[in-house]
Amino acid sequence: MSPILKVVVGGSRKGGAVKRGSLVMVAVLALVVGAVVGVVGARLGGETATGGGLADLAEARGLDGQQAEAALKTFVPPGEYDEYYMFASGGHSGQVLVIGVPSMRLLKEIPVFTPDSWQGYGYGTDQGNTVLAGGSDQDKDATELTWGDAHHPALSETEGDYDGRWLYINDRANGRIGMVDLADFKTKEIVDIPNISTSHGGVFVTPNTEYAHISSMTPMPFTENGYADLSEYNEKYRGVSSWMAIDQATGRFDLENSFQIELPPYTQDLADAGKLTSFGWGFINSYNTERAVGGDAEGGEPIETGAIAADYDFLHIINWQKAAEVVAAGDYVERNGMKMITLQTAIDEGLLYLAPEPRNPHGVDVNPTGDYIVVSGKLDPNVTVFDFEKIQTAIQNQDFQGTDDYGVPILNFDSVVAGQVEVGVGPLHTQFDGDGNAYTSMFVDSAIAKWTLGTKAGVSEADAFKLVETIPVHYNIGHLVTAEGDTVAPDGKYMVALNKWSIDRFPSVGTLHPQNFQLIDLDSSPLQILYDSPIGVGEPHYVQMIKTDKLTSRLDVYPVGTDPATMTTSEFATAPGEERVERNGSVVDVYMTALRSHFTPDILRVKEGDTVNLHITNVETAADATHGFAVPQHNIEASIDPGEVVNISFKAVKSGSFAFYCSEFCSALHLEMQGWLLVEPK
Amino acid sequence: MSPILKVVVGGSRKGGAVKRGSLVMVAVLALVVGAVVGVVGARLGGETATGGGLADLAEARGLDGQQAEAALKTFVPPGEYDEYYMFASGGHSGQVLVIGVPSMRLLKEIPVFTPDSWQGYGYGTDQGNTVLAGGSDQDKDATELTWGDAHHPALSETEGDYDGRWLYINDRANGRIGMVDLADFKTKEIVDIPNISTSHGGVFVTPNTEYAHISSMTPMPFTENGYADLSEYNEKYRGVSSWMAIDQATGRFDLENSFQIELPPYTQDLADAGKLTSFGWGFINSYNTERAVGGDAEGGEPIETGAIAADYDFLHIINWQKAAEVVAAGDYVERNGMKMITLQTAIDEGLLYLAPEPRNPHGVDVNPTGDYIVVSGKLDPNVTVFDFEKIQTAIQNQDFQGTDDYGVPILNFDSVVAGQVEVGVGPLHTQFDGDGNAYTSMFVDSAIAKWTLGTKAGVSEADAFKLVETIPVHYNIGHLVTAEGDTVAPDGKYMVALNKWSIDRFPSVGTLHPQNFQLIDLDSSPLQILYDSPIGVGEPHYVQMIKTDKLTSRLDVYPVGTDPATMTTSEFATAPGEERVERNGSVVDVYMTALRSHFTPDILRVKEGDTVNLHITNVETAADATHGFAVPQHNIEASIDPGEVVNISFKAVKSGSFAFYCSEFCSALHLEMQGWLLVEPK
Repeated sequence: MSPILKVVVGGSRKGGAVKRGSLVMVAVLALVVGAVVGVVGARLGGETATGGGLADLAEARGLDGQQAEAALKTFVPPGEYDEYYMFASGGHSGQVLVIGVPSMRLLKEIPVFTPDSWQGYGYGTDQGNTVLAGGSDQDKDATELTWGDAHHPALSETEGDYDGRWLYINDRANGRIGMVDLADFKTKEIVDIPNISTSHGGVFVTPNTEYAHISSMTPMPFTENGYADLSEYNEKYRGVSSWMAIDQATGRFDLENSFQIELPPYTQDLADAGKLTSFGWGFINSYNTERAVGGDAEGGEPIETGAIAADYDFLHIINWQKAAEVVAAGDYVERNGMKMITLQTAIDEGLLYLAPEPRNPHGVDVNPTGDYIVVSGKLDPNVTVFDFEKIQTAIQNQDFQGTDDYGVPILNFDSVVAGQVEVGVGPLHTQFDGDGNAYTSMFVDSAIAKWTLGTKAGVSEADAFKLVETIPVHYNIGHLVTAEGDTVAPDGKYMVALNKWSIDRFPSVGTLHPQNFQLIDLDSSPLQILYDSPIGVGEPHYVQMIKTDKLTSRLDVYPVGTDPATMTTSEFATAPGEERVERNGSVVDVYMTALRSHFTPDILRVKEGDTVNLHITNVETAADATHGFAVPQHNIEASIDPGEVVNISFKAVKSGSFAFYCSEFCSALHLEMQGWLLVEPK
Repeated sequence: MSPILKVVVGGSRKGGAVKRGSLVMVAVLALVVGAVVGVVGARLGGETATGGGLADLAEARGLDGQQAEAALKTFVPPGEYDEYYMFASGGHSGQVLVIGVPSMRLLKEIPVFTPDSWQGYGYGTDQGNTVLAGGSDQDKDATELTWGDAHHPALSETEGDYDGRWLYINDRANGRIGMVDLADFKTKEIVDIPNISTSHGGVFVTPNTEYAHISSMTPMPFTENGYADLSEYNEKYRGVSSWMAIDQATGRFDLENSFQIELPPYTQDLADAGKLTSFGWGFINSYNTERAVGGDAEGGEPIETGAIAADYDFLHIINWQKAAEVVAAGDYVERNGMKMITLQTAIDEGLLYLAPEPRNPHGVDVNPTGDYIVVSGKLDPNVTVFDFEKIQTAIQNQDFQGTDDYGVPILNFDSVVAGQVEVGVGPLHTQFDGDGNAYTSMFVDSAIAKWTLGTKAGVSEADAFKLVETIPVHYNIGHLVTAEGDTVAPDGKYMVALNKWSIDRFPSVGTLHPQNFQLIDLDSSPLQILYDSPIGVGEPHYVQMIKTDKLTSRLDVYPVGTDPATMTTSEFATAPGEERVERNGSVVDVYMTALRSHFTPDILRVKEGDTVNLHITNVETAADATHGFAVPQHNIEASIDPGEVVNISFKAVKSGSFAFYCSEFCSALHLEMQGWLLVEPK
């Protein structure tokens, strides 16, 4: 009667084609079941496709030739696997989305900055609660934060290529950074970055994940109480570039070896890391170098007007390797627990340079060889390509066109630009393929421009820096992504447009429309849209696309007794037969196990006012044998994966008889997997 | 430079096929843009499919014939619409999922019981906060509930068919019910049902949405403090069947005209409404009529063992029309604000009867003609079909086999059963097509059985009550759904298996696996699986599938100044030019507008300790022109749809300069849509 057994029996009748990645899972099943005959290699049909039948079927469904081809290009048969994962930020949902390509199926939402009751994240269990609490400003006056605006995911890298170990993501709303472990797809840490109020720039990781970078968006006052009137904006407000060191064993943030660099009070925007040729350097866009503060109801003009006055803003060029040496040499100040290199030191030590970039830039992207830095001014029809070698020469020759108001040297624009390409209206972000092509999204034009880089990217002199073609998207695209398109080795093949508006692309779901991810075939010429994919669970900003088989550290089942926070055996792990209740005064510790289809113990007797500490071990060893643990009227909901230990602490404030239960359908007698919490009145 | 304009320009280059439903939107655009030339009727490709090319493409991607056909049967071309919406409960995510069929694309998650920062639901705005607070037990000692276990969605009906007005859903964890308005896809009300602790049975609506039914799952003590020891289970614990009257104008709950019926302390499970022949009656399954309470660590046996001892449990047969008359006649008691018919009155008035049903039933489903009530015992290989006419005859003839321990008459099993069909191991739920066929999910077998009903469903005597075929699914199916399969007029065509386990069906996303919705072609013989769809945002339990064009009340844009709570003009609506700040002592009221790309006012000066009431009107009139409003470090996040008014109240507890911003990408200068909240220190 074991569901697992039945699973395999069911599988043997029809099953699903088993891919490389799932042999591990099959092995796990084998341990449980003893036999997996029939699961491996079984196929849905078998007979090959007959052209006539397919054409008739396409006709019957009203699909034209291109649509029928798109169907065949994007379909992933039942039981088979997508070739790529996309990791998408959820925007103000605060989460991360995992999507398969080319099917565009949403595989999972990973909670990061926002509680998620399905996964028991932030609903009474230690894991989620601890991570979320750790991510809130520890100041006693601070509001506890239960959401974030997740913007830019960054997969960990080794030698500039994705290595599938960890994922980092920033909270644009509150200036925080989170870390997701790709072994179990769980968020393990959130850090509230000191001296930053909001963050847009980054997250990016350096080529060997030495650092995860996060910079401030709107500058904040460096004052005791965090307040300064806007009349003191130029003097007291400052931006910050943060280099968060990463522990190479755990992927966590190493605050001791992290540092910040003070920046002028511009609005620092997106950022990217140098690679190969430009290894050791980082680049940050900025806008509102005019330092407009608004005041549209006070006789002033809105920021949108004041911030677009100047023809140029500034690309920040940072030597992070040298900055780390400066910090090591002790040339920093301590500010709210972070080592900070002052703006003056950054200037004196040659850690920070500026380059003019056309109007209100948004994206900055380094090409695969590391030679070119591409920026797009939202109000300029061109993409501007900087040449890293020219930047270095200009720095050596002190080829400056002056300094900004804060004394930061400004490189001579003409000396550092490799080329400009007119792409269209409202260019934002750029991604790359392996053949020297760049792809730039254009919000206002609702289109993507394909254009060529220069000779250092393998393009001939004659073909360099030319517009190849433009493809309309639907509608108002923000970011875009190509397969592994921001690594040293892009795959080409697929591109996804992250459209902010969908308008009429999907049947109405009310006044808030979903976004629209559009899958584009990079091997087609002209470029063809294959699929429209609604995003109705958040507003993704940036996405990275990684080959499925690169996530080699994935776990499908924890060793029994695992604490996901440490990935080691929990001190509270409880084996069958060792379940017990320990009472010390008004504190009750319960060591419980969960096994299809009962909890042991299944009756908990406490008194009103008692503090109850539940330690629950899911002693299952089969993949997918998750149990939930929910307590009515107590706002407690845990998801306990096979092998996992969760700890739940609560005060029994209200008398009553409460039927706790397994909230994850686990077995034929799942509904009977229930028990009683009896809170006796005082 | 208006994105809307560009949208249409972009659309005119490639555009998307515009369906009936979106002409409204196009019209809205027309008002904004003045011209929509090119949007209507534009197509992606144009040339028809060539069979050879498709077969080659299928071959190249390794698709066999059946897989290639499945691709063409499920593909919905870019810009075209799905034929059906599925409304799925999110399980312990607490939400509702809207999924398109046949593409299986997730169109939107509607927050119901759990906060959602993307939609600004429960993050400082009145709408979400008010709804969520209203759904918590008002007792001051009660914990505020910020999640639910959404189980059974029920679309509103007229004459037994979906009418597309409202959706109701229960919270299994806390005994609550929520209402979603399908005009704007927003949750408008949550009610914490008195005298119920947990709820599984229902939700179902009566054929004209007179009532939404919700019953208790685990019984609770009818005592002052809600507590009673388990030794008093038989005497003091009771179940409840609740009939929540629906206001036909608003779809909201009318507590004054709602009532409850006291039930024995069994674990009441799923429920369904009679229709046509059986109009006026309701049916509720039950299990654990043994009244096992567990005690596996106290020398007792787990509930899963005690609750499966008896060969039969009881189908509850309730005459709700007569019950309403009894209440109208005043024959009820008041209990915690609800009118309750006591168990004795229910017996005396002939409102409640029991019928034996084989072991530990889960699903109860009434067929389209209303003649048959199908139940499935989880531990019985048969589905059991009751005949409503026979039930009525048995009641008239007092053809009872006795009474239960509480005096409720038990109908003679043989007198009321129309037939039994052996389907397989672990049958759970049944859905129907329009041809007299029934489809029953089997958890343990991981399969669905197709079988025939009786002559009253139009089946010949010879073919009645026979197993037709069985199709394996992957894996461990719970509920299933057929197109409009629980109405008086099912469509057939599509069936979806809601599989609880996916094991190896998708590339690993860590230790918590997604569920697997499998789309099945009901027109195929034998039945064929078309598509595997991962569900990684919750654990759906039940789903209803409705034709897209039945949602006629959908709004894409609110009239400017709308309060979604009332769907009328808000008293706080602010027109451009009327923006203002009103200060009364330490209370500051801000009347603000949001318009691409600025807020007015964009500077808010308050003092530490002030109470701030923001009233923000999105004055946009274009579909999809949503603005967000986020305040760093304040846990405030609003999503303001075009025309919508939101109200946000908070205390400025911490001094500082906070850059509030639009969190929904709205325009080319979205990043510049920002302002300052200045909280001056005391």
